[in-house]
Amino acid sequence: MRIACCLNSDATEWRDALRAALPGASVETWARDASPSEYAIVWRPPQEFFDTQPRLKAIFNAGAGVDALLNLRLPDGVPLVRLEDAGMAEQMADYVVHAVLRHVREFDVYESQARGGVWKPRAPRRKADFPIGVLGFGVLGEYVARSLQTMGFPVHAWTRTPKDAIGLRVFTGDAGLEDFLAATRVLVCLLPLTGETRGIVNRRTLALLRPEAYIVNVARGGHVVESDLIEALKEGRLAGAALDVFEQEPLPSGHPLWDQPGIAVTPHISAATLREESVEQIARKILAMERGDPISGVVDLRRGY
Amino acid sequence: MRIACCLNSDATEWRDALRAALPGASVETWARDASPSEYAIVWRPPQEFFDTQPRLKAIFNAGAGVDALLNLRLPDGVPLVRLEDAGMAEQMADYVVHAVLRHVREFDVYESQARGGVWKPRAPRRKADFPIGVLGFGVLGEYVARSLQTMGFPVHAWTRTPKDAIGLRVFTGDAGLEDFLAATRVLVCLLPLTGETRGIVNRRTLALLRPEAYIVNVARGGHVVESDLIEALKEGRLAGAALDVFEQEPLPSGHPLWDQPGIAVTPHISAATLREESVEQIARKILAMERGDPISGVVDLRRGY
Repeated sequence: MRIACCLNSDATEWRDALRAALPGASVETWARDASPSEYAIVWRPPQEFFDTQPRLKAIFNAGAGVDALLNLRLPDGVPLVRLEDAGMAEQMADYVVHAVLRHVREFDVYESQARGGVWKPRAPRRKADFPIGVLGFGVLGEYVARSLQTMGFPVHAWTRTPKDAIGLRVFTGDAGLEDFLAATRVLVCLLPLTGETRGIVNRRTLALLRPEAYIVNVARGGHVVESDLIEALKEGRLAGAALDVFEQEPLPSGHPLWDQPGIAVTPHISAATLREESVEQIARKILAMERGDPISGVVDLRRGY
Repeated sequence: MRIACCLNSDATEWRDALRAALPGASVETWARDASPSEYAIVWRPPQEFFDTQPRLKAIFNAGAGVDALLNLRLPDGVPLVRLEDAGMAEQMADYVVHAVLRHVREFDVYESQARGGVWKPRAPRRKADFPIGVLGFGVLGEYVARSLQTMGFPVHAWTRTPKDAIGLRVFTGDAGLEDFLAATRVLVCLLPLTGETRGIVNRRTLALLRPEAYIVNVARGGHVVESDLIEALKEGRLAGAALDVFEQEPLPSGHPLWDQPGIAVTPHISAATLREESVEQIARKILAMERGDPISGVVDLRRGY
């Protein structure tokens, strides 16, 4: 069995880890003149990679979001498999918990007061007044929603297709989106980026949120219309946002989001792909496929996730 | 039954809430010429209050820490009862979780980078490398320790008297303190302030912590020798601290802690006394005492908590 690693960074580290996990396989980093492989591990590969791989049985994306791959011509009938959790959910939950606590408890205000040497307690705020709406209720969305719920926040979620969840209200589809937004003061985006979700956080949807809403985006920059966000902030309809992802990354120098009061910018660090966990997951799925067993995480190319 | 409210702020609000909770009682804010009461609700009362109350059956402190009361002459044989949790544990846990995530995930560094318009991801750090030691394992300490544990941090605790805890190592007494400190990279102080715990975070104990340690103090300023903390920070042995309490409050303007890089100062806001929860708890205990039932939260005056 031949496995090709075609990643835009750390390809040799992934190759070595896969060799260790699958001693029977021949694992190589991709080279233009290499023999075709049965399995591919990819992260932002060039189109040429797929054009020279006629024998692929599966493509494993070394991340949860496959939106970058969907712009390429993928080989027909070959399952595209996305990474499921692999340590990312916990990291994302920590990012979101930090951002939400910082906003609700006004630690950002205290930090700015402290820079001026100002001792000034503020009236306590209660979690009950900050209902959190989680956009997206897949593996990552559900983990984050449950983490916030465990901390005592009122949490609800929105998803495209109906999904059962004990003790948590899940709004569904276009029909449920307005009610979801109307119930939300803190909006957390954990959606996959598809044609349907691009620009979902925009002037119209922002206007439907509760007053002084707060946005946390750990999904993709394409989900948020950045100019609409800035406008809502300037008009005082939004209290602020914690943004880890942007329409253009790195966020260009001089971009207005850098200096916007109330906006916390981080450089796409909410969840690192943990190589060890990821390789373990991919190796397990390759062995399952070789046995003819079904695997999870196969992307529905029409839905885009 | 007469109840006197002697609080240095909001005394009338406490009185009204107690009247609602105990319709059969006569509840008044304290006045020098009032008839003696059977029960007192106090927060930083003057000595004169106790000197004019010969009939007290119990004194309820409107907070968890009774250190300020222990400097007064309290009437002999009258139980002093401290507030137990009443919503404080959850607020403190949120404060500590925010502070710990901010340090471990370097959100403070990202914020400072963002102020300069710098996009620069850093190598991910793992929770496993940040074992947290919680000093104090009473109602508040245990709640905070469990919250951190739920988030995936390695957590251990230290307490004066042995205490069982499932799945969490509790070090005990003077003999256990050095091992506790040696195992700790993030030190969270949730002790009562007593003669034995005053200045417990000092040059000697700071030196026993793991390298690049971080301190979170949500107990009392008297637990930390501030000059020793600043020295350890300047010498690079400490990575930083999140401090909510100080030897002198408000922290005086010009105090070196205001401007110390790595130090986050908040104005004693980690947990507000929630009047509703507190009054409910105190009313329940008064009714129990009237029935002759035992109550919890009675302070051992020799221990100081």
